Amino acid sequence: MARFAAIGLDHRHVYDMTEGLLAAGATCAGYNPDTSDPRVLAGFRKRFPHVPEAPTEALLDDRSIDFIVLSAVPRDRADLAIAAMHRGKDVMSDKPGVVALAQLDAVRAATEATGRLWSVCVGRVASPSLQEAIRVVRSGELGRLVQVVSLAPHRLNRALRPDWFFDRAAYGGIIADIGVHAIDTFLALADAEQATIESATVGAFGTAPEGFEDFCEFTLSTPSVRGYCRADWFTPDGLPDWGDGRLFLVGTEGTLELRKNLDIEGRPGSNHMFVANRAATRHVACESLPVTYYRDFLDAVRTRDFSTLPQAPVFAATRMALQAQATAKRFVAERGP
Amino acid sequence: MARFAAIGLDHRHVYDMTEGLLAAGATCAGYNPDTSDPRVLAGFRKRFPHVPEAPTEALLDDRSIDFIVLSAVPRDRADLAIAAMHRGKDVMSDKPGVVALAQLDAVRAATEATGRLWSVCVGRVASPSLQEAIRVVRSGELGRLVQVVSLAPHRLNRALRPDWFFDRAAYGGIIADIGVHAIDTFLALADAEQATIESATVGAFGTAPEGFEDFCEFTLSTPSVRGYCRADWFTPDGLPDWGDGRLFLVGTEGTLELRKNLDIEGRPGSNHMFVANRAATRHVACESLPVTYYRDFLDAVRTRDFSTLPQAPVFAATRMALQAQATAKRFVAERGP
Repeated sequence: MARFAAIGLDHRHVYDMTEGLLAAGATCAGYNPDTSDPRVLAGFRKRFPHVPEAPTEALLDDRSIDFIVLSAVPRDRADLAIAAMHRGKDVMSDKPGVVALAQLDAVRAATEATGRLWSVCVGRVASPSLQEAIRVVRSGELGRLVQVVSLAPHRLNRALRPDWFFDRAAYGGIIADIGVHAIDTFLALADAEQATIESATVGAFGTAPEGFEDFCEFTLSTPSVRGYCRADWFTPDGLPDWGDGRLFLVGTEGTLELRKNLDIEGRPGSNHMFVANRAATRHVACESLPVTYYRDFLDAVRTRDFSTLPQAPVFAATRMALQAQATAKRFVAERGP
Repeated sequence: MARFAAIGLDHRHVYDMTEGLLAAGATCAGYNPDTSDPRVLAGFRKRFPHVPEAPTEALLDDRSIDFIVLSAVPRDRADLAIAAMHRGKDVMSDKPGVVALAQLDAVRAATEATGRLWSVCVGRVASPSLQEAIRVVRSGELGRLVQVVSLAPHRLNRALRPDWFFDRAAYGGIIADIGVHAIDTFLALADAEQATIESATVGAFGTAPEGFEDFCEFTLSTPSVRGYCRADWFTPDGLPDWGDGRLFLVGTEGTLELRKNLDIEGRPGSNHMFVANRAATRHVACESLPVTYYRDFLDAVRTRDFSTLPQAPVFAATRMALQAQATAKRFVAERGP
């Protein structure tokens, strides 16, 4: 049975990854308690009280450990991933996997030199409704895919955020950090290895500290499909979820909507899909559909066959996000008197 | 009581305008039976059997008629509107009011020379949920407005469309024709007289005839608010309405969604509003809220006070739509083997 260590307890996403891996049958063999955010560490200990702590170096040197799970400060993830790969370990990284193109190149070189798996846990792999949407598109029910719109509001949760969350050099910027999900999803839906970012804007609408990137939008395309994404930090306090994430697909013969987080003032639960095709409309409850990502990851670690978790799209989406971030126009909203 | 004539029975929109005006107390004094589409004419006669027919010239010369309602082929609307204004009549025009900037300039000159009202019946003025959304934004409940997203699918209804519908010179192009709604709505929500079109794309995804503009998208902004619109002709056959039109508002303190046409697989009826603010979420059924446009128009005709129907936004939105149409990048989708 695969054994892993959790390194970099800087973001709560480590809970989801650890829980997903434990549920898929892996064993968490240790964690390093160094953190930028003691609340994340306390939450980890509370959720996983039987996991022993150990220094990072000891975990990386432990030959009984097959892979590491990374949720460090984004700026530090590439170095940790590279170190782990060079010591014979695969990597499951929180997103963003890197915050700079040079880091991405270094990670790619490490995967090539070591033959190790570097998997970034983006929304697509962990969302049952996104997985179902991909299946519907592949089935041809929507005809040829025309466009993908992603609306991705996130709750700021200021009181829970460590300092690095507001430091652009540390988290990489809003497109690199949360826009990357939509790029990855677009590539999957368009069944493309690459796409062109046609325009990108990063916005600052007054969220402190001054200039904080609280908004982004971008358009992208392949030769046959167009895409638009907005991501932001403006989930209202009164919404009973961290964000009302939506996905809208237009095809020549049908349309599809996901309400990924919740059906506002509607049905209970998450992961709702709405399809309209040539004959009818339907709602599909996707919340309890199986997510195979963690099992696929463990299979890939064991068999060294990475075909269910191809790395090219991960690198492509990350590269596109970093390029969009670097070239985005900056929009600083005027505020009234 | 105000009397009007219906001229140019080329699009079914004339039914809605006539019904709205009759319900508001006006009298339809006549119509010209010349049409490019005998089905539209037959439908008008069936709905309004007591309205007499007459030649256009006779209707324009009839001094008992206060205004005309125009749903001619879009290319012909400007000339008819100008002729009517110069003969002392106000105008309620189907959208698009014009298909070229030179036409728009000529209409503006006519309004200035004659003091007549030229009102274009865009979605904003006739939609109870849009009117309610504008009230919510003005109330401050959403904080400062950050962004407006409009998704506007339309049913192609090929079998019902006359030839001019597919002739770009006659209908003006997809942004001028149906994108104009979103521009007008954006200006109203942003409380702005002008906005900048930042990027615009017109797409052809294979709808016959070859090259037909079945898709458009554009981004726009004021100094404080951003906007994105997609409009298309891809409403699936199985959807029980002509299009699942949506509007998404993001504010610094709240968000708002409109499902203008229907709540797919949800509540009955149209004009659903969903608000999330600092404290809670709520659904508001807007379908039966009063729409004041037709009454406001009749008041303006009678009192010559146009303040409830200011013309500047109509000209601004139309100009922006024409400019976006003229400068849009063209995207012709590749189709697989």
